Amino acid sequence: MKCKKCGEKALLNMRHHNMALCKEHFIEWVPEQTARFIKKYWMFGPDEKVLVAVSGGKDSLSLWDILVRLGYQADGLYLGLGIDGGINYSHESQRLTEKFAQERNLRLHVVDIEKEYGYSIPVLAEISHRGHGRPCAVCGLAKRHEMNRIARDLGYDVLATGHNLDDEAAVLFGNTLQWYPEYLLRQGPVLDAADGLARKVKPLCRFYEREMTAYALARGIEYIYEECPFAEGSQQIFYKESLNQLENARPGTKLTFYLKFLEAKRSGELFVAKDADRKGLHACTQCGQATSAPGLCSFCRMLEKVKLDSQ
Amino acid sequence: MKCKKCGEKALLNMRHHNMALCKEHFIEWVPEQTARFIKKYWMFGPDEKVLVAVSGGKDSLSLWDILVRLGYQADGLYLGLGIDGGINYSHESQRLTEKFAQERNLRLHVVDIEKEYGYSIPVLAEISHRGHGRPCAVCGLAKRHEMNRIARDLGYDVLATGHNLDDEAAVLFGNTLQWYPEYLLRQGPVLDAADGLARKVKPLCRFYEREMTAYALARGIEYIYEECPFAEGSQQIFYKESLNQLENARPGTKLTFYLKFLEAKRSGELFVAKDADRKGLHACTQCGQATSAPGLCSFCRMLEKVKLDSQ
Repeated sequence: MKCKKCGEKALLNMRHHNMALCKEHFIEWVPEQTARFIKKYWMFGPDEKVLVAVSGGKDSLSLWDILVRLGYQADGLYLGLGIDGGINYSHESQRLTEKFAQERNLRLHVVDIEKEYGYSIPVLAEISHRGHGRPCAVCGLAKRHEMNRIARDLGYDVLATGHNLDDEAAVLFGNTLQWYPEYLLRQGPVLDAADGLARKVKPLCRFYEREMTAYALARGIEYIYEECPFAEGSQQIFYKESLNQLENARPGTKLTFYLKFLEAKRSGELFVAKDADRKGLHACTQCGQATSAPGLCSFCRMLEKVKLDSQ
Repeated sequence: MKCKKCGEKALLNMRHHNMALCKEHFIEWVPEQTARFIKKYWMFGPDEKVLVAVSGGKDSLSLWDILVRLGYQADGLYLGLGIDGGINYSHESQRLTEKFAQERNLRLHVVDIEKEYGYSIPVLAEISHRGHGRPCAVCGLAKRHEMNRIARDLGYDVLATGHNLDDEAAVLFGNTLQWYPEYLLRQGPVLDAADGLARKVKPLCRFYEREMTAYALARGIEYIYEECPFAEGSQQIFYKESLNQLENARPGTKLTFYLKFLEAKRSGELFVAKDADRKGLHACTQCGQATSAPGLCSFCRMLEKVKLDSQ
């Protein structure tokens, strides 16, 4: 297989694009495409301050690398979750994230959940009994809360996450199997800003996971290979496997599934035009962050419960 | 496993309903449920004349059996498609359908496509070059046309087909992977009558395929075991396998997928309220049947092409 642009040996064949590219052209193509997606979906402008949520994995570190290469003002936010899982997961991912930032002279904010709130994610999950034995629900809640908090406190306009096409398609697949109106109407590459919550964007939403792996490797980015030890056997991974089978039988299935969904939302021919943004929000009486119901936000409510239960 | 109603040995365990039933109670339960679905989705009333499209397979013969047991005026329509496939498929399915009708003293209309139009389905497909080597597109077109024609000419109010949950979920799955607004907005257990087209209904849409197999066997219905020889390797079967995997991992997935879709359509919370019925139709200048565009309907256009090409 030869590069479509120069005829050299290809690094990657992308059957869904009917295109193979060599290493050199591939690492040019990815940021070009990313810049196109950022514009197409109105993610952010050149003067906006971007906070990239970095986990130490290939997607988020690659996103940071791409945004910096494209000239955006992009700083990083690493959240220390206190997950060990026998592989020193959080420690190792933090080390790699800090190394990445130092080597490139980038600004990285580090927030450690245990230092900040007294408990690591697994402990919070255990005490609060949320999520049926998996800390994933508590982890998602805490990450959303902390990302919003830091973006607001430090004055960032936009929060960027490294979700790739496989992630987005799997979430869409799960939401579709259950036809959740509220999730389906909200899913997309951009969640608008509202009431002190920064805009959230997913600039990698149209790249396959294997494209992001190839990019990280081709750019020599050192990232943590392991998935979060708690992800194993999750619903999400099960949906990814289902979609992989469909993709293997018909290359492009995932991309079509996601893009036609976005197109159906845009056209107004299928879905009701419900506000995808976050209106009618209240300020949490504890932390001040916007939340859907009056009183405490879910995160502060969870913390309250944990404090009571651990007394 | 014991019958929930009488404690006898169960014939079938339905994990999605958390219920096992013995043979006797199962063959009572299926018509009870069918009657419930007929009412719930406003399919037809006790005085309406129903034409059941029967193929000789387990679903359509069971449907006919159920409707007759429920006291509806249900006649059968068998379409001779002229498919051999090395297993004498059409001949055998016609024989079993006629036997079913005779033994129960039911009225069966038989229309043979070749006698009516000069060509069998496989020949029509070959000459017309529709459907990429599979006659399935032509077959669907011809069946729809002939079912509508017979229902209109013989004054039936309703056309009932034996689509089960596995069929409906697979169609929905395919339409969802591509997010086709026109198909998604129209899919459901009922397609309203319009312009001389009889109402179309699917009273078995909430039964799993294995439930219908169990019903046919328990009722001693002799049906053709073979699938249509052209179905092998079809998209539809591929989607069914995908859904079966999801179902195996989480029993009830198919039922939830289909029912929550219907619920999302009903609630108006997700989909636009487009007319699901067939408005703005024209009469075909050849056969008079309602069709979406002026001039010939697709079936008559296909026949014209075949006549030209075979001259």
